Amino acid sequence: MTRDALIESLKPLLDAGKLLTDADSLDTYGKDWTKHFAPAPLAIAFPKSTEQVQAIVRWANEHKVALVPSGGRTGLSAAAVAANGEVVVAFDYMNKVLEFNEFDRTVVCQPGVITKQLQTFAEEHGLYYPVDFASSGSSQIGGNIGTNAGGIKVIRYGMTRNWVAGMKVVTGKGDLLELNKDLIKNATGYDLRQLFIGAEGTLGFVVEATMRLERQPKNLTAMVLGTPDFDSIMPVLHAFQNKLDLTAFEFFSDKALAKIMARGDVPPAFETDCPFYALLEFEASTEEVANEALATFEHCVEQGWVLDGVMSQSEQQLQNLWKLREYISETISHWTPYKNDISVTVGKVPAFLKDIDDIVAANYPDFEVVWFGHIGDGNLHLNILKPENLTKDEFFAKCATVNKWVFETVQKYNGSISAEHGVGMTKRDYLGYSRSEAEIGYMKAVKAVFDPNGIMNPGKIFAE
Amino acid sequence: MTRDALIESLKPLLDAGKLLTDADSLDTYGKDWTKHFAPAPLAIAFPKSTEQVQAIVRWANEHKVALVPSGGRTGLSAAAVAANGEVVVAFDYMNKVLEFNEFDRTVVCQPGVITKQLQTFAEEHGLYYPVDFASSGSSQIGGNIGTNAGGIKVIRYGMTRNWVAGMKVVTGKGDLLELNKDLIKNATGYDLRQLFIGAEGTLGFVVEATMRLERQPKNLTAMVLGTPDFDSIMPVLHAFQNKLDLTAFEFFSDKALAKIMARGDVPPAFETDCPFYALLEFEASTEEVANEALATFEHCVEQGWVLDGVMSQSEQQLQNLWKLREYISETISHWTPYKNDISVTVGKVPAFLKDIDDIVAANYPDFEVVWFGHIGDGNLHLNILKPENLTKDEFFAKCATVNKWVFETVQKYNGSISAEHGVGMTKRDYLGYSRSEAEIGYMKAVKAVFDPNGIMNPGKIFAE
Repeated sequence: MTRDALIESLKPLLDAGKLLTDADSLDTYGKDWTKHFAPAPLAIAFPKSTEQVQAIVRWANEHKVALVPSGGRTGLSAAAVAANGEVVVAFDYMNKVLEFNEFDRTVVCQPGVITKQLQTFAEEHGLYYPVDFASSGSSQIGGNIGTNAGGIKVIRYGMTRNWVAGMKVVTGKGDLLELNKDLIKNATGYDLRQLFIGAEGTLGFVVEATMRLERQPKNLTAMVLGTPDFDSIMPVLHAFQNKLDLTAFEFFSDKALAKIMARGDVPPAFETDCPFYALLEFEASTEEVANEALATFEHCVEQGWVLDGVMSQSEQQLQNLWKLREYISETISHWTPYKNDISVTVGKVPAFLKDIDDIVAANYPDFEVVWFGHIGDGNLHLNILKPENLTKDEFFAKCATVNKWVFETVQKYNGSISAEHGVGMTKRDYLGYSRSEAEIGYMKAVKAVFDPNGIMNPGKIFAE
Repeated sequence: MTRDALIESLKPLLDAGKLLTDADSLDTYGKDWTKHFAPAPLAIAFPKSTEQVQAIVRWANEHKVALVPSGGRTGLSAAAVAANGEVVVAFDYMNKVLEFNEFDRTVVCQPGVITKQLQTFAEEHGLYYPVDFASSGSSQIGGNIGTNAGGIKVIRYGMTRNWVAGMKVVTGKGDLLELNKDLIKNATGYDLRQLFIGAEGTLGFVVEATMRLERQPKNLTAMVLGTPDFDSIMPVLHAFQNKLDLTAFEFFSDKALAKIMARGDVPPAFETDCPFYALLEFEASTEEVANEALATFEHCVEQGWVLDGVMSQSEQQLQNLWKLREYISETISHWTPYKNDISVTVGKVPAFLKDIDDIVAANYPDFEVVWFGHIGDGNLHLNILKPENLTKDEFFAKCATVNKWVFETVQKYNGSISAEHGVGMTKRDYLGYSRSEAEIGYMKAVKAVFDPNGIMNPGKIFAE
């Protein structure tokens, strides 16, 4: 079938005007936040119902055309890139909150509901949707589920996986499955819901998701603590975790802080210079909790683990302390950083971090390494800034070597080459550093069960 | 191959004396707590290492002999019953805690570690393993994972699933897989760990599991509240959930309470007779929290949702209040109850419960129905007591009809025919009431990926 004939045969399955093939649309909807792959989709389809999604999938099976799901396109692994004549299925018009269940604290969402929209809906009902990250203003629930999105509150609330009570999916064969029926307890065989979470659209499309909500946090309070070395951060985490229910435990290095201070628009936490900083957050729901936090802080100072620190006394101060951490990514983007999102178990973080530092310092002494991340869950964001004397191409060529060292070190420490950004196309060739050959074999066989013709987001997670 | 030759060929794969074929062992290890199926295994194998488990699985594939996993054998769905010449693989000698990771709060366990053993280990390290249920003194971690065990603290801590950081499994093909590597964040494709949780040993055997621990709860405090009708329990749950982090929210009927009171060894909660009772628990970590609970109680009384109530003031009182709920199952066992473990979403509980009550009352007016369960998570234990004038056989014949009504009502309310006890053999013929034909088809195909020869616990979850 010709390209034009394919498009003509797809058109009647959608509402009028909901299949786009103009150059702008192909370019916009054919990519995510990654820039390595040139978008080249066949067309962009905007279904408005589950039935239309099923019709598209059946059509794709019939014509052996690949489909790529598209949500907020804020992904960082090229999982939502259509570079090979695929039809992009964009969920922009399936964006409604369908139902709220007060006693269950659940919200039935279409996949195109934006994260922020769900957070606001929760607030309006006196509740809280706790999965939060930088792109919450444009990322969609369907994409959050596809990547099992994490973010800054994982230590307390877990990943997106924890908040999916149930969902409806259309498999690669076009079947509509209702998974788990929003139940808390349901011991009736394999929990297929879990397979679709984090599957990056390679098994099927989420067409409806029931998300759980939580009570709102009370009087969130942050502390920023300076430590004499990285190793001290671990006993600090340990001491606070034994006393408080932490909602976050982040860290950043002096180099990261220096970049933030140079902006001039964020007040410093305190005067003392320290090589590393921890930012922790908790609910100071009563004065006793706040006192417990202060006592733990003093204990950490006495032990020599903490050199200086500050605790927020107002909402404004809380926000200012968070800026020290949250502005890092945007601020260092000026230096065209090589970025990697990796994880190890929490106890292994200090040795792992030192190994990477040593390797980079020994081989590229002129590279500036900026560390930050979610230390409470073992998720580190490694950033290496481009030295001014190197061109972008020279720098990225050297980073390819760094990549290999990083992944070898991840493997040595039994960690993950992608903590929360997914595999997509950017990391698929490195998957073997984190998953065994046997495991990858089983994953491919599982994919074949749900998508025997290989039409669902092919080339993502593993090469075709 | 003859039966004897099979046994002789299996023997060298195990330590000396670790393959039993005597009648007592076959009877003991061939069944769980269900009594419907006569045990008839070929032999009982006690592996002492992962390598031995792999060897057994390879042997089973070669000789097409089915394997049945055996843990504490406290299951209630006949998932661990060997009634057809299978080899039982019992994990009694793989029962060690291998490793404790302080900063990660994780414990690496062999599958035969007993739940209570893990709870005690946690306590000795100042921590807490929160999955708890009646059989914790004999159930094993491997079995807990196989059934995704729940229990009385699910409303706060979730099911066993939430506490499995990672595990090693031997698949039905004999491959050893290390799933998730104990990471909190790991976005590298399908989370196969989740498939094995709740799979009832039909995909493979767990040979090692890393379990997460939590901080210990502080000053656990219980309230028992009497309500004028079942419907009032829902706004009570809602009111308390908005104010407190509940660790449990259970309920029982006046008929259940009457049986407990008749024992004579449990003090009454209060004098007022009520048709239904809620038992809730929370951490009274500070006086403010306890005051909040009392204020919420008063609010519920003012609204007419609660007729009377009591709050524990000591550890002893806490335990006595819990006896009102925890002794029910054992106490009513005297009446040979028909039992069913079912769930619906929380908001649907009142209408669902009324439907079942009406059906039973209309058809069997002489049947006494005793309700109790975990209302906070929608999990109801329906118990119908045998009238004295019926023989056991007559009673169970009538219960077969009740079964059909119950499952039809579960289906009408989009609930689960097995909330936390699993499917095994006792519910496999009813699976279609909770999972669609398409879903069951995918489940069977997934099983074929991990167990192509169908040797892993065949006949459980679905018929062969």
